[in-house]
Amino acid sequence: MKKFINKPENVVSEMLEGLLTAHSDLLKSVENNPKNLARKDAPVQDKVAIVSGGGSGHLPLFLGYIGKGMLDGVAVGEIFASPSSKQIFDITKEVNSGKGVLYLYGNYGGDVMNFDMASEMAEMEDIETATVIGTDDVASMPKGQENQRRGVAGLFYLYKLAGAKAEEGASLEEVAEVAKRANQSVRTMGVGLSPCILPEVGKPSFTIEEGQMEIGMGIHGEPGYYKGEIQTADEVAETIVSNISSDLALEAGNEVSVLVNGLGATPLEEQYIIFRKVSNIFQEKNITIDKVYIGEYATSMEMAGLSISVLKLDDELKRLLNTPYTTPFHVQV
Amino acid sequence: MKKFINKPENVVSEMLEGLLTAHSDLLKSVENNPKNLARKDAPVQDKVAIVSGGGSGHLPLFLGYIGKGMLDGVAVGEIFASPSSKQIFDITKEVNSGKGVLYLYGNYGGDVMNFDMASEMAEMEDIETATVIGTDDVASMPKGQENQRRGVAGLFYLYKLAGAKAEEGASLEEVAEVAKRANQSVRTMGVGLSPCILPEVGKPSFTIEEGQMEIGMGIHGEPGYYKGEIQTADEVAETIVSNISSDLALEAGNEVSVLVNGLGATPLEEQYIIFRKVSNIFQEKNITIDKVYIGEYATSMEMAGLSISVLKLDDELKRLLNTPYTTPFHVQV
Repeated sequence: MKKFINKPENVVSEMLEGLLTAHSDLLKSVENNPKNLARKDAPVQDKVAIVSGGGSGHLPLFLGYIGKGMLDGVAVGEIFASPSSKQIFDITKEVNSGKGVLYLYGNYGGDVMNFDMASEMAEMEDIETATVIGTDDVASMPKGQENQRRGVAGLFYLYKLAGAKAEEGASLEEVAEVAKRANQSVRTMGVGLSPCILPEVGKPSFTIEEGQMEIGMGIHGEPGYYKGEIQTADEVAETIVSNISSDLALEAGNEVSVLVNGLGATPLEEQYIIFRKVSNIFQEKNITIDKVYIGEYATSMEMAGLSISVLKLDDELKRLLNTPYTTPFHVQV
Repeated sequence: MKKFINKPENVVSEMLEGLLTAHSDLLKSVENNPKNLARKDAPVQDKVAIVSGGGSGHLPLFLGYIGKGMLDGVAVGEIFASPSSKQIFDITKEVNSGKGVLYLYGNYGGDVMNFDMASEMAEMEDIETATVIGTDDVASMPKGQENQRRGVAGLFYLYKLAGAKAEEGASLEEVAEVAKRANQSVRTMGVGLSPCILPEVGKPSFTIEEGQMEIGMGIHGEPGYYKGEIQTADEVAETIVSNISSDLALEAGNEVSVLVNGLGATPLEEQYIIFRKVSNIFQEKNITIDKVYIGEYATSMEMAGLSISVLKLDDELKRLLNTPYTTPFHVQV
């Protein structure tokens, strides 16, 4: 195992310590629970608060999206492990300004269970919550079972759009509606080239042999639907865009945003080669790309691979997407 | 070889095509030479232009630093290969507004030769140029031979500081003076865990065995001064900070900026664990950290490893460091 760590069991706490020190202008830790992080100025008055959370190992997901125009608080779990319900409840109280709290996170069993319990604990203290679960991974379940799909890099769009709506002073119901619509409008598909290594395990949890790739793979290495010979960048882009376009029922005249997301070890150079083809495909189909994101948005430590997310825009989503935000990892002006 | 590419010989041109499409609001290509990129609004009137260049494979270095408050133009070479002198001369003409052009790049033989020739070509057309060469890699040559050191991630600071000075309307001499002072004030040391693969070669150009690391390694895999058993994150941070501090003659009361730079495959989580220790060391020594950068700033494709750069601040460098800039990869507000 080749990692810059000290003791494997301290990876998450030391990472958080470094992160809080580096970004003390934007983030604060929360009393009682060192794995809860909040916006420096939380609770923000007269604003619906947005809380997310999930396992570590996916930076910038989840905690990297705390900031103005995005999330108010995050409950951080150990590597690939859910935060506890008590922890989620604690961060809920911390960021709630009285206007309600939206739980916005990806569809994984442990997270769903713990956020649901936290929601019940909040209800007992008269904190209103709503829940929207990200299910953008088009490869994880067939059409018709969309709500059982996993949540992956498309979560970025849910945060951005709901975050922008909340920043405008919208109600909990309105913010949740935008998050729901964003989730219905975004699809992601990933492809893996090589695995990541859990620090406490010390070896890869799956293998992809030399010369092979796996299309449809999840961000924890969940199996995809194609494992075979490595394809060219253009072929990979074609396969993914074709699957997403059909699932989203994209047609000429539509407007979309595209996110090419590196899973950890994939060079930016290759992500731009992939985007080149995505752009060519959409241009041929007379589908306009309004806003492009390329880089690391939802990783899996040192896993090599990438995902492509496509968000179908309507007028409101387009407007909300183009508002500014400031987080430790990305800034949009 | 596991890469998202099409034909190896098209990697750079297809990457550039994707990059120009994705960032057409900030960048433009330049007639006659598809491997020259410029600020969308170049030439910027009444401003010294800054030109850099070098081999590809290091994104965001070099072309990723084009933008307001940073570079005006970049001559892009093939992977790990210098751009030609004619190419550099062409971009010089393209971005020159009449106030002179600063050549600012890292110390590699091919680049030095070609920039020098371009400078002579510019002189014949009455375009005034000045040259400052980045030599921040403390491990590449001993003290006393600073000007023979390689330029690595510290180039980011040279771009930022000279770029901010140029944006203020300073003269060529003044901008070059800031770049020189920045170079004298910054030191970098890298550490490698695993190699990168050149697309046209298809296999690693060097190896670091399982359980081993190499400290002092360059961004093309140039050998370091220690190759041995992998150390903890804290030990790596201590070694690097100690070398840099002694070379920069840092002492209590100094103020510095820190850049932790991932070489390509190293997770952000590990970079924050490294930064945690860097911060602790400086705190103990009563050295203040003013501004922190963590992420990918100068990579080597899929190489695993990182570097730490430390910039010693004076009043002017501190002021210039804190001004905004906008580039395709990073934004500072």
